[in-house]
Amino acid sequence: MSALIYCPFPDRESARSAANILLGERLVACANILGEVESIFEWNGERGSATEIGVLFKTHAEVLDKASARLGELHPYDTPAVMGWCCDAAPQATREWLGGLGSEK
Amino acid sequence: MSALIYCPFPDRESARSAANILLGERLVACANILGEVESIFEWNGERGSATEIGVLFKTHAEVLDKASARLGELHPYDTPAVMGWCCDAAPQATREWLGGLGSEK
Amino acid sequence: MSALIYCPFPDRESARSAANILLGERLVACANILGEVESIFEWNGERGSATEIGVLFKTHAEVLDKASARLGELHPYDTPAVMGWCCDAAPQATREWLGGLGSEK
Repeated sequence: MSALIYCPFPDRESARSAANILLGERLVACANILGEVESIFEWNGERGSATEIGVLFKTHAEVLDKASARLGELHPYDTPAVMGWCCDAAPQATREWLGGLGSEK
Repeated sequence: MSALIYCPFPDRESARSAANILLGERLVACANILGEVESIFEWNGERGSATEIGVLFKTHAEVLDKASARLGELHPYDTPAVMGWCCDAAPQATREWLGGLGSEK
Repeated sequence: MSALIYCPFPDRESARSAANILLGERLVACANILGEVESIFEWNGERGSATEIGVLFKTHAEVLDKASARLGELHPYDTPAVMGWCCDAAPQATREWLGGLGSEK
């Protein structure tokens, strides 16, 4: 079963750096850097806003926990927003590709 | 358990306005305004297209239904596309941050 | 129950073409072309990068498998990344709109 992780970064460099490490550790098969996002948030009771870089990582359900935890370690923030979910449908070619990350190697 | 909501808006102002209300009502912790999306759709049997503003809201599974319903009320469209889903994985820091929205306060 | 599919394309034309066919076959109700994404990936053991066009398709859980498989057929790549998931929350208006794709017609 394939899986996705959404995670915004402060800039492209940190996004690319994390993506390359996760690829090297075979925890994701691909990162899609979506580009600039306008973030509006509440932090310690204060309303704030910032420009961040949104990223979607394609991975497999079998390594989703490990990939999310590792992304949390690699991320420049102390409290990153790393949000992963399992997918319910994918054509065989996608499943086989991403299955290469899990035990279906 | 964290959760995400995807919802496109007609413009940034309505997206920001809804985000600020949902933040104030502690139904989301952050909104990421992804920027312009090209929408192609079928409406009342007619093919149409429009430029909209895509937004991802970060929230918690315990308030996901309430946040989605409230977003439906706040949205300028009579039939908005508000699509929320629970996530399966997140590092502890993300869980604790978003847990602040639910009973894990 | 509503559902989403994320799928990047090599260009806007192929994205629009697939969207229009899926709309015509009532397998999706709307496509949001998110725009350019920077993709970093591993393919046959080689690290690579490319500019692609990210797309989110809004559909219904009852046709999610069919829509994902059909998207896999329509996609220009032999191994496309087609990743679909069921949503857990949506206001009534969204459910009724997307329900029109499934048996809730």
